[in-house]
Amino acid sequence: MSKSITLSLDGMGGDDAPGIVLDGIVLARKRHPDVRYLLYGDETVLGPLLDKQYKSIADIVTLCHAPDVISNTDKPSVAVRSGRKSSMAQAIRAVKDGKVDGVVSAGNTGALMALSKLTLRTVPGIDRPAIAALMPTQRGESVVLDLGANTECDANNLVEFALMGTLFARSLLALENPTVGILNIGEEEQKGRDEVKEAAAILRNNQSLVNFKGFVEGNDIGIGTVDVVVTDGFTGNVALKTMEGTAKVMSRFLREAFKSSLLAKLGYVFARPAMNRVRHRTDPRRYNGAMFLGLNGIVVKSHGGTDGLGFANAIGVAVDMIRHGFNDSIRADLEKLHTQSPTAEVQAV
Amino acid sequence: MSKSITLSLDGMGGDDAPGIVLDGIVLARKRHPDVRYLLYGDETVLGPLLDKQYKSIADIVTLCHAPDVISNTDKPSVAVRSGRKSSMAQAIRAVKDGKVDGVVSAGNTGALMALSKLTLRTVPGIDRPAIAALMPTQRGESVVLDLGANTECDANNLVEFALMGTLFARSLLALENPTVGILNIGEEEQKGRDEVKEAAAILRNNQSLVNFKGFVEGNDIGIGTVDVVVTDGFTGNVALKTMEGTAKVMSRFLREAFKSSLLAKLGYVFARPAMNRVRHRTDPRRYNGAMFLGLNGIVVKSHGGTDGLGFANAIGVAVDMIRHGFNDSIRADLEKLHTQSPTAEVQAV
Repeated sequence: MSKSITLSLDGMGGDDAPGIVLDGIVLARKRHPDVRYLLYGDETVLGPLLDKQYKSIADIVTLCHAPDVISNTDKPSVAVRSGRKSSMAQAIRAVKDGKVDGVVSAGNTGALMALSKLTLRTVPGIDRPAIAALMPTQRGESVVLDLGANTECDANNLVEFALMGTLFARSLLALENPTVGILNIGEEEQKGRDEVKEAAAILRNNQSLVNFKGFVEGNDIGIGTVDVVVTDGFTGNVALKTMEGTAKVMSRFLREAFKSSLLAKLGYVFARPAMNRVRHRTDPRRYNGAMFLGLNGIVVKSHGGTDGLGFANAIGVAVDMIRHGFNDSIRADLEKLHTQSPTAEVQAV
Repeated sequence: MSKSITLSLDGMGGDDAPGIVLDGIVLARKRHPDVRYLLYGDETVLGPLLDKQYKSIADIVTLCHAPDVISNTDKPSVAVRSGRKSSMAQAIRAVKDGKVDGVVSAGNTGALMALSKLTLRTVPGIDRPAIAALMPTQRGESVVLDLGANTECDANNLVEFALMGTLFARSLLALENPTVGILNIGEEEQKGRDEVKEAAAILRNNQSLVNFKGFVEGNDIGIGTVDVVVTDGFTGNVALKTMEGTAKVMSRFLREAFKSSLLAKLGYVFARPAMNRVRHRTDPRRYNGAMFLGLNGIVVKSHGGTDGLGFANAIGVAVDMIRHGFNDSIRADLEKLHTQSPTAEVQAV
């Protein structure tokens, strides 16, 4: 279990990079003292920081010079064409070259996905990678995917996501037979878009591979009705951000309420420890770190607007996936799958 | 302003119908004492209720027999073909026949939309009706549409939604020049699906009609970044239900926290009035009642799982729309629009 792990980090990705990346390493060290880092970025920026403010982590960080930066407004196609010398591309390349066990970046999501696909390629049997993350629910945590890699998906893509989500929940949530639902606008079979109905029909006929429970709706994410929620990247991204936004609004309403009267203020004094627990439980930074599933390598995307604590959690996600041997298990499971139905990944309806 | 209003109600639509409908009338009477109702449904069920438990509203309710019920699992096509004698179809027909000023139903959304389109037809210049509702935000309230009428939309549909949403916010939120955003998975121009990018390009060229502010993301709904959020019915429905689910989960976390220690319980005693205000502010029943925009008539859809209080709010929405003369204003605005650009609704890019 204590196999030594090395990660490459995109030192220049994220709204407040490189500060969040360096702060993230400081915090991650406490939980994962044995992890080492290759930090990619402009050495004229990062060098002085590691010499001074961040001297405490200089012993676990190797600075790797990458002169260019991919900005948040760069198109993925531009990143692929002319971003080879960027901190992001070099950090991904380190995975391909076997120098590290995985990569973490808080940079441009589209560029990270395009460069990862190009450099690492998808696992045989997977057509399109997906972005997956854990979300807090009433019952605990659920996996939701895709969160933005594929703005349009056909039925086969959704079926692949259901498979990858199953394997992911199995290894990260330690569930033997995780339940899976497809996000739709109603639970009835005839509702929703064609690709969603078609994917459901395929999964209903392949219950041995995926423990498919049918359609779920937006509110089922929070309830935790299923362990894995499958959707296209456009809908998933909107749902994820809507959750974040709603949680923020409610927190704000609460803060206002606690300030609204002397009695409420007094109540807050007594309830503060309990309130802090709620805040901790729903802190988006705790859930920071989305996995790119289906690639030949561990790639974790941190929220661009996160801080050091959030980035440290993204590092933790990469470490967990590596420790669980996620990529080996997904490959093994896909092979099993191909043996089961030799002509296609899944048996059509 | 105190023009007398009559509404037709689908007495058999909704999970707990007809109870929620009758309870809704009782509660709505307090706020809108002058409103009268044509109640459609099975007279053998509704008659005894109005004679006994609900005698107090018998003077404002006229029972209209409709023997059939459209269930939640009926396909819209089936409802259109063989649902003519249903409480839902008859209640809509009453609008067409000029017997009432609007209709409220908590029944099957797809069937209600299909029957409304068939019976009332769309306003000239509008291709597809949309479902719109108000949502609570940090700044107050915003309009979100479409919430489920159109699972797939092209750019022109989205542009029409932007127009209708503008008119709706103008009349219901009393905003002179409401701001409009299109829901996307990033704010940058090149992100997202093609139809979304195309609609944005059209709106950017027609700023005199719609105060278009560009793309917004899921979290912007809660923040209240714009007054009108435009999206397709699939994404909008998922976002709406995700908001509801997240709010529920957070309320539950809060309840658990307040019970977690003696101090927290004590805190709750003091903070209770403030907490009740938060609960009230985010109560989904307060926001119950979605409008079908773009039809020749007022149609309001109540959540199927609501209670009497929620149904009363849906009645209130219908009353507000009628009092504001919404349908006349949408027609007048569309005419203005046609005069501005005689060859098309909107000037293409």
